[in-house]
Amino acid sequence: MLILNTGGTFNKRYNPLSGELEVPCDDAAIISVISTFSEPIKIQGILYKDSLEMTHDDRELLAATICQSDEKCIIVVHGTDTMDQSAQAVAAQCRDKTVVFTGAMVPFSIDAVEATANLAMAIGYARNASNGVHIVMQGVCGSYDRVIKNRACGKFDYVQD
Amino acid sequence: MLILNTGGTFNKRYNPLSGELEVPCDDAAIISVISTFSEPIKIQGILYKDSLEMTHDDRELLAATICQSDEKCIIVVHGTDTMDQSAQAVAAQCRDKTVVFTGAMVPFSIDAVEATANLAMAIGYARNASNGVHIVMQGVCGSYDRVIKNRACGKFDYVQD
Amino acid sequence: MLILNTGGTFNKRYNPLSGELEVPCDDAAIISVISTFSEPIKIQGILYKDSLEMTHDDRELLAATICQSDEKCIIVVHGTDTMDQSAQAVAAQCRDKTVVFTGAMVPFSIDAVEATANLAMAIGYARNASNGVHIVMQGVCGSYDRVIKNRACGKFDYVQD
Amino acid sequence: MLILNTGGTFNKRYNPLSGELEVPCDDAAIISVISTFSEPIKIQGILYKDSLEMTHDDRELLAATICQSDEKCIIVVHGTDTMDQSAQAVAAQCRDKTVVFTGAMVPFSIDAVEATANLAMAIGYARNASNGVHIVMQGVCGSYDRVIKNRACGKFDYVQD
Repeated sequence: MLILNTGGTFNKRYNPLSGELEVPCDDAAIISVISTFSEPIKIQGILYKDSLEMTHDDRELLAATICQSDEKCIIVVHGTDTMDQSAQAVAAQCRDKTVVFTGAMVPFSIDAVEATANLAMAIGYARNASNGVHIVMQGVCGSYDRVIKNRACGKFDYVQD
Repeated sequence: MLILNTGGTFNKRYNPLSGELEVPCDDAAIISVISTFSEPIKIQGILYKDSLEMTHDDRELLAATICQSDEKCIIVVHGTDTMDQSAQAVAAQCRDKTVVFTGAMVPFSIDAVEATANLAMAIGYARNASNGVHIVMQGVCGSYDRVIKNRACGKFDYVQD
Repeated sequence: MLILNTGGTFNKRYNPLSGELEVPCDDAAIISVISTFSEPIKIQGILYKDSLEMTHDDRELLAATICQSDEKCIIVVHGTDTMDQSAQAVAAQCRDKTVVFTGAMVPFSIDAVEATANLAMAIGYARNASNGVHIVMQGVCGSYDRVIKNRACGKFDYVQD
Repeated sequence: MLILNTGGTFNKRYNPLSGELEVPCDDAAIISVISTFSEPIKIQGILYKDSLEMTHDDRELLAATICQSDEKCIIVVHGTDTMDQSAQAVAAQCRDKTVVFTGAMVPFSIDAVEATANLAMAIGYARNASNGVHIVMQGVCGSYDRVIKNRACGKFDYVQD
């Protein structure tokens, strides 16, 4: 299993000099979760962006990185705003892997609980998941085209056909 | 899905008057995790004990409660010291359910990350798990007779045949 | 003693819908500190602004509120960027009170330690402080024209003549 | 100024192997507070005990350490249960120093707010305090024989003559 960190709110940290929350170019938030495990999970970082700033090329890079990885099962930590677009780009290209997207509505550095729950549930779900691209957010688990962000209330819902 | 809270370190809170960590007769720690979900998961509390104090009768009650539940999939929050004994008691009696035991080495009230990760991973794992009794702790997921607490170093390991 | 809350970084909270840190129109962060006390301290809220947005009129209102208060000793929670300007405006008008400005470089909601330390030290310092306007930030206590924010490194220093 | 760390609840940390809260032989909790300051304050550790375990000899050592220190102003971090006895022992021997006892009802590692507020308020209070032995706990500041722990409700009160 590999955790691929693309950035997003999950990772944001407060910079006291700028007064802004920034996506750092590191995996500290993910490491804080993984360090509670008996066995470490490999982490790889790419892009490190707010998902609103992700371009078509960024999604191509993400999909290519997943397709070319030696790992069969990949957890993608990603911003929530365009998680669906990236999941679709990956689904179009990588058919023989189990890919689970997750992220957070509140940075791990501000409130660890939601971010930790999302990442850990994604990992637990991935253990038995079928090939394909899935989203696990806020207790909702399913195919990437069924787990949808409700922007008005900041929640992810499972949407039936 | 049902979360059955039996107590254990996961739930312990500090009592400033006694200076001791106590297992409270409530589900506050679990609720803190579940409240980050889009949809609540039902929680039921029984026993509320440190697992070192669990008796044979307590385990019979736990197994009976699970067998008689309407839910097919049950997460059991339990102390780590005798989690294996309770899991065995449940496995001997409930064959047609998916039961996942979890807990924490550090109380949620002291450090939320490990406890949150364990519970959320147990829930994610349970979504696709087969019938039987499983343990999910510290990133390790598997049958209850394979996931073993190493008391010397305070870690759970997966033990092969 | 009165705590006068004008807003600033001390109070900021994350809004998951906007993805921004906002100055809320409440005193929740201050109340979290004060609730550890045996006796509550009275809190009054005005302005609730990021200090970069404070106008001349806002400072006049702040000074008038302090001058007209029944309390002899007033702690002002304020943003750090223009704390010096507000302190100067108050010093020009209120000569017979003990006023102590404080705030935080990191929101209480992100890391409680610095914000709590600043506010509590300000209160402890105020118990025996002389009439006049003081600043207490990051362990530095003194007259408002001696405790200066070093913007390059985000630290407050005591500056000798 | 010197911070003299004798141990007590302020410093306690959870040991996952024993399941107990322990007074560690280090100053990590105090350092977490002090690291938010522009200038570090010197810390010295002695005894590192739960205050219920402090003996007459321990109090003699504490008083001697304070009397012989080069520092004029000393903050003592101490367990709350026998803080009054140690303060009395120090008061009997050290008349020309400003000594402020503080501590916490809840370990810094469990909830940082009360412990941080107590220590920071003690430091702020000490800046202008007269010679003598004082206690600062939970917002209450005063002579050691006026600030009394109410064991029934776990609060410190200021007691008039």
